[in-house]
Amino acid sequence: MVDVLPGFREFYPENCFLRNFVFEKIRQVCRHFCFVEYDAPILEPLELFTEKSGEEIVDQLFAFTDRGGRAVALRPEMTPSVARMIGSKINALKRPLKWFSIEENFRYERPQKGRLRSFYQLNIDIFDEHTLDAEGEIIALTIAILQSFGLSSDEVHLRLSDRCLWSILLQMLHVPEDLSTTVLSIIDKIERTTFEEIIEQFNKLALNGVLLLEKIREFKGIQDLQGLEKFFNQLPQSPGNLLEKVTLRLDQLKVLMSLLDHKGLKDFITLDLGIVRGLAYYTGFVFEVFERSGKSRAIAGGGRYDHLIEKFGYPQTAAVGLAIGDVTLMHMLQEKNLLPAFEQKCDLFVIFDAAVKHLAMYDVHQLRLAGFSVNYTFKENVALDKQFRQALQQAHWIATYQDGKSFLVLKDLAHRKDYEISRQEIISFLQKQNL
Amino acid sequence: MVDVLPGFREFYPENCFLRNFVFEKIRQVCRHFCFVEYDAPILEPLELFTEKSGEEIVDQLFAFTDRGGRAVALRPEMTPSVARMIGSKINALKRPLKWFSIEENFRYERPQKGRLRSFYQLNIDIFDEHTLDAEGEIIALTIAILQSFGLSSDEVHLRLSDRCLWSILLQMLHVPEDLSTTVLSIIDKIERTTFEEIIEQFNKLALNGVLLLEKIREFKGIQDLQGLEKFFNQLPQSPGNLLEKVTLRLDQLKVLMSLLDHKGLKDFITLDLGIVRGLAYYTGFVFEVFERSGKSRAIAGGGRYDHLIEKFGYPQTAAVGLAIGDVTLMHMLQEKNLLPAFEQKCDLFVIFDAAVKHLAMYDVHQLRLAGFSVNYTFKENVALDKQFRQALQQAHWIATYQDGKSFLVLKDLAHRKDYEISRQEIISFLQKQNL
Repeated sequence: MVDVLPGFREFYPENCFLRNFVFEKIRQVCRHFCFVEYDAPILEPLELFTEKSGEEIVDQLFAFTDRGGRAVALRPEMTPSVARMIGSKINALKRPLKWFSIEENFRYERPQKGRLRSFYQLNIDIFDEHTLDAEGEIIALTIAILQSFGLSSDEVHLRLSDRCLWSILLQMLHVPEDLSTTVLSIIDKIERTTFEEIIEQFNKLALNGVLLLEKIREFKGIQDLQGLEKFFNQLPQSPGNLLEKVTLRLDQLKVLMSLLDHKGLKDFITLDLGIVRGLAYYTGFVFEVFERSGKSRAIAGGGRYDHLIEKFGYPQTAAVGLAIGDVTLMHMLQEKNLLPAFEQKCDLFVIFDAAVKHLAMYDVHQLRLAGFSVNYTFKENVALDKQFRQALQQAHWIATYQDGKSFLVLKDLAHRKDYEISRQEIISFLQKQNL
Repeated sequence: MVDVLPGFREFYPENCFLRNFVFEKIRQVCRHFCFVEYDAPILEPLELFTEKSGEEIVDQLFAFTDRGGRAVALRPEMTPSVARMIGSKINALKRPLKWFSIEENFRYERPQKGRLRSFYQLNIDIFDEHTLDAEGEIIALTIAILQSFGLSSDEVHLRLSDRCLWSILLQMLHVPEDLSTTVLSIIDKIERTTFEEIIEQFNKLALNGVLLLEKIREFKGIQDLQGLEKFFNQLPQSPGNLLEKVTLRLDQLKVLMSLLDHKGLKDFITLDLGIVRGLAYYTGFVFEVFERSGKSRAIAGGGRYDHLIEKFGYPQTAAVGLAIGDVTLMHMLQEKNLLPAFEQKCDLFVIFDAAVKHLAMYDVHQLRLAGFSVNYTFKENVALDKQFRQALQQAHWIATYQDGKSFLVLKDLAHRKDYEISRQEIISFLQKQNL
């Protein structure tokens, strides 16, 4: 007996139903926002991922050599593939593009709560839009998806941050530009690392760890625009017109915040500079969605990444995107009782005497073609009362075909009502009911 | 720039739309037949496939060693995984089971028309049903799926054959039982092989190639029950009560044919012993769907495989299944113009003066939450007439928000009608329209 690999899942019908329910709801909301769906190969040339994805992701690749000698890998994320799709046809596509996918990704991680080796992810992206309308749209769609499952702003919030302000801050604190990405990835893990370890990591980069960490912690704690202005004004003046850059960036932040306010999303948004995002390719505003209780991992994460597509050799193309993983989302929805029950009942169950099976079989097929879900008991010569008991558990209506009778009996189980009708009428009769 | 691997596909929105359209229609029909959906991992332990799948499939595996030293492979077919799912929980599951999946499979083949290295497949299976009702139900569902796309019995037919009759015939022709599977797999390829090659292959197995091929060709040509009876009666009497076995089996075939007849499917069915099915695990009736024109590869194929689940170490469980590949199906539907146009129009496009953008943004979000697909022009200060031109191309309705006006103008583009309504009314107004 060969078991499922660790970190992979079988979906028995009940779980498959829940998965499909969640995906279908997400698809609907994406369509209400006029996003169109795309997909890309699960298996890609290895170098698509080794060159541009974060280091952590590359260490977790399912990579191998195929029968043709190609170095290939199961995709750990969708972004490189969609960057290629967009980049290679950018001039043929009507822009700006609002695209989404619901795809399976693979990462060789230690399986644990909320982390599997195979997981699904919703990716929503807007390409070729420089204005904050793109951020506004992506954030609004994310929140609308959460709302569609019945989640309120008391339960979840989107923590909004800015990589630009972070990188200006690092410049003001005299962190050399080429260390900026490394420092940000250290900051990204700050809540899971001890102070001593962080200071040691900074010192190793020949930075003043103690001073840097003090300022970073102060910055991370700021929760409003006024606080941000005050913080930057109190920093020692630095070379270059960095303060001017701060002002411009704070203006952008104000515009984005009021755009989200106008969309009626204020209660869902928390300004929180503690969000940095681990991936190196983000270039502007970044965001993550969490439960307010703080219980779970991030439910969603994203941001602006204006320079990724050009890194693949295509024309520079602005981009804002966000991803929602299925594992954490499903877990939260399950905990909050926001998932529906698995309803297996069919519209109609047909029971029959063996002598008139041929009539029942004909009608079953016609009823199914007409769009009703119809079931019946397999095997010959099952007693009518046994068929009836099976029908009771499985259907909303029961049709009984008895030998020698010129009509059939239709039973509406919900309303405890019986009808005698001719075979010819059955489809039109059922079409008039509320099935 | 990193290209897509050969035999893999990107799905740009139009193709993704068509793929989803086909899958969603198939899902609907499966549900009308009361089949439930399941799924299994794309990556499985290698031995799941090497032990039970056909040799050809094993030679085409995307197999590798994962970071944990496990021999793994991308699944080339769903059957071994579903056999495990069913087998390991057979006593907890309500039987008979009617299951389906729409899954991606991977085979390292030479990419050519109708053959890709990654393809989707619909799998429908009934487990734990010994009677011919299972065959009847699988065949009826297959044909209903074809009918749901608008295909008629003039265009497609299901070729019905029987592995049992084949194996009785091989016994009558003195083919040793242990060679039976090998001989059948040679017969499966008979139409793509020259006579000389076949005779050579038979002779290599120490069989009388010329005689064998003559009888096989005669048998393959039979097209009705009478012909089958006549053929077997003319064969020299053999050891064992083989003729009795033939009679019993022909009775079964008669029952199945009349069951399909009762379901109204007669016009879709062709008795055709030329169908053998390459996979070794089939044990009874087998079938393949083809275009009547004979133009394309098989669109679907399946049959009874009562002994596969026990081969994985689980209790013996009867099974009948069928698979439809997406590549050939889509190709045929495209050729016959049976696929819908890619409709990208949204319900409503909102255009606005910059001064009232905040009002428009609020309403856009509320309309989307209410279930309308709504779009608008990104960027600040786009002239109203330019927004209008974009709206014309993209939407069925246009709402105009003008500065200083206490109402908004709703334009029904299909019916060339304008309405002046207050902002508060817009959702309820649109809900009353046929959107």
